[in-house]
Amino acid sequence: MILHEAIAAETSKQLDVLDLTVKINDLLKKKGIDKGLVNLWTVHTTAALTVNENDRGLWSDLLNTFTQLAPVKGDYRHKPNAHAHIISSIVKPDVTIPVNDGEMVLGMWQRLLLLELDGPRKRTIKITVIGE
Amino acid sequence: MILHEAIAAETSKQLDVLDLTVKINDLLKKKGIDKGLVNLWTVHTTAALTVNENDRGLWSDLLNTFTQLAPVKGDYRHKPNAHAHIISSIVKPDVTIPVNDGEMVLGMWQRLLLLELDGPRKRTIKITVIGE
Amino acid sequence: MILHEAIAAETSKQLDVLDLTVKINDLLKKKGIDKGLVNLWTVHTTAALTVNENDRGLWSDLLNTFTQLAPVKGDYRHKPNAHAHIISSIVKPDVTIPVNDGEMVLGMWQRLLLLELDGPRKRTIKITVIGE
Repeated sequence: MILHEAIAAETSKQLDVLDLTVKINDLLKKKGIDKGLVNLWTVHTTAALTVNENDRGLWSDLLNTFTQLAPVKGDYRHKPNAHAHIISSIVKPDVTIPVNDGEMVLGMWQRLLLLELDGPRKRTIKITVIGE
Repeated sequence: MILHEAIAAETSKQLDVLDLTVKINDLLKKKGIDKGLVNLWTVHTTAALTVNENDRGLWSDLLNTFTQLAPVKGDYRHKPNAHAHIISSIVKPDVTIPVNDGEMVLGMWQRLLLLELDGPRKRTIKITVIGE
Repeated sequence: MILHEAIAAETSKQLDVLDLTVKINDLLKKKGIDKGLVNLWTVHTTAALTVNENDRGLWSDLLNTFTQLAPVKGDYRHKPNAHAHIISSIVKPDVTIPVNDGEMVLGMWQRLLLLELDGPRKRTIKITVIGE
């Protein structure tokens, strides 16, 4: 079975992190997926998807590291938001995760995170499941 | 349906970016894929695949950020191209993207980009589709 | 066919790299997979999966670059191992690779690597195959 779905997310700051785990697992349950793979894909060049803990202190540390690597007010040829494109190109817009027993196979601390790098904005995350 | 294909790309500089979007979408159309997932995989340890805009200014900013993180002439144990291996290990050789209506599900500005980090060279990108 | 399996790995240092290529290819052969995609997924927030050469000098260069970007003893809000979470968020816990003729489609130098960022620990890698 191949299933294409999408969810929306609204960020509230220029640099932000949103935890999408519950929304995605709810969708998997609603659609009755038992096992397979779920591909998550954000259709933007200034956001990205990653996986880590739900912890605001950590999110702040993560964004600080990114903006040391690619400063928001750096000297770039691409104006005015190259930092966001660069970080998105490094972390990338895709993540593919096993699904088993109707939900994503996550370790105790793993959460699916949207990185907003040029917000606040409305963002779209495509969800594709190949499974049974 | 499982489909294994490959495309070739030739880079022209030591550090280079190539936009492969049209080649990949043309292949999907030629093969009559309607929907599913496409996995793109470059079989090299000094190149990588990512997604962002087709903009030469941005590509220059991106390569500058990478070579600040891992300088081409840095002090490494692995000679002579550790910078290329390091950046490839961070960005990685894979990206997996939804396919719908016969093409990759891309946002307005998203393009599939090959990062050349130790060129010029001939590069191979494997294309695997699981779909209908 | 959808197949869910797992392998275990034991790291021996705080920062470590393990080559999992043989273990994964052995599993693919044992299960009789001919072709498709294999998704590798580590269920941890302080480890990651990537692809590059099996070379201890390179692994040292790679870990040095990571700890320059996110120092082990940096000034973070998330105590005491934010460096490991940050690097894991950048490199990410997933990689998806084509399978053909019963094994991963790897270039001459490509090996599947587990990055340990907060060891030594026992780690679990989930292996999901969609194929024939």
